[in-house]
Amino acid sequence: MEFQNYFPIWNKLNPEHQKQLLGSLVTRKAEKGTILHNGSIDCTGLLLVKSGQLRAYILSEEGREITIYRLFDRDMCLFSASCMMRSIQFEVTIAAEKDTDLWILPVEIYQNIMAESAPLANYTNEIMASRFSDVMWLIEQIMWKSLDRRIAAFLLEEAAIEGTDTLKITHEIIANHLGSPREVITRMLRYFQNEGMVRLSRGTVEITDAEKLEKACEK
Amino acid sequence: MEFQNYFPIWNKLNPEHQKQLLGSLVTRKAEKGTILHNGSIDCTGLLLVKSGQLRAYILSEEGREITIYRLFDRDMCLFSASCMMRSIQFEVTIAAEKDTDLWILPVEIYQNIMAESAPLANYTNEIMASRFSDVMWLIEQIMWKSLDRRIAAFLLEEAAIEGTDTLKITHEIIANHLGSPREVITRMLRYFQNEGMVRLSRGTVEITDAEKLEKACEK
Repeated sequence: MEFQNYFPIWNKLNPEHQKQLLGSLVTRKAEKGTILHNGSIDCTGLLLVKSGQLRAYILSEEGREITIYRLFDRDMCLFSASCMMRSIQFEVTIAAEKDTDLWILPVEIYQNIMAESAPLANYTNEIMASRFSDVMWLIEQIMWKSLDRRIAAFLLEEAAIEGTDTLKITHEIIANHLGSPREVITRMLRYFQNEGMVRLSRGTVEITDAEKLEKACEK
Repeated sequence: MEFQNYFPIWNKLNPEHQKQLLGSLVTRKAEKGTILHNGSIDCTGLLLVKSGQLRAYILSEEGREITIYRLFDRDMCLFSASCMMRSIQFEVTIAAEKDTDLWILPVEIYQNIMAESAPLANYTNEIMASRFSDVMWLIEQIMWKSLDRRIAAFLLEEAAIEGTDTLKITHEIIANHLGSPREVITRMLRYFQNEGMVRLSRGTVEITDAEKLEKACEK
């Protein structure tokens, strides 16, 4: 599969722009755990995921983390190219959550094409609106949902992504996704275990009653 | 002052687009307290503030509020036109915080021009990126800052907006901005009063030691 198939508005770009974009692409393989973009380092470029999984998160001064959104096959990351727009005044870190194949689109080329091409500018708009929706969902979660519901929802989401009810995940990783202290996560998972919803063992959370867990996240 | 002067990329639009935009504009006066856009009602249109002040906020199912961003003279609100982009999957409410003069730009016209005009699409991108930055700032505040620092920062911001240290504001309004229960705000304001930073009276919070308040919000 070629880049063109991963770029939905390819046919709306003119031949000159297509040529510029193809000529400047960089392919990259990132092993699970690789930091692809670090908030404080300038403009990595736009990341287009061919296959794999990326995680975008922010860090507090004390090193606490919270996941902002995740990117899967065919998703594009704009904020690794934050210098592209002067109004982007925040920093995210992007890491590979699984072994990932991706393309890196250089900022300057993308920016120049976007300045001339309404289709590319509108496509970029849609991507940003989609991330904006992720972030608004996150605010609603943080503000109005209790932590037990957020953990339940996170475990169910992980099970859907991984296609298994036996999740290889530590309490610390869950804490980093949700922006909560590790001890608080551990306490809540033990409560879930007592309620028969999960079974805990070293490095593993097994969902034993998905239905009950789903009720916990709706209540 | 005409609309053209409030629309920074006016000269980058072609005459046909300029004509369409001017021909479809609606001017509106909104008294303080008016709800201009309600999340659940469809596409109001884009709001461009001539003078005044708007507040964008979200509501929980239980009726709790939190301010997402505010709009001042010359600011434009995209999310009152959320049907404009299919990726906008969240709802905000927009209310006038002061008597406000504004223009409403109809969605369909704006959308049609944006589909053809790279300058308008890029301008829209910059506005969205700017709101995105506001929201990321908010997440950092909620996640990593304690409530006392958030209240201190809010009071200083209000004083800067209003140009006075004597703020006509109730504890409930502060609670609605910050997304916290009213009782918690009251308790914290009393603590600030005991520390000599503010003086409380009915419907008023007077900042009596701005320097100490600033230190409280940096600590």
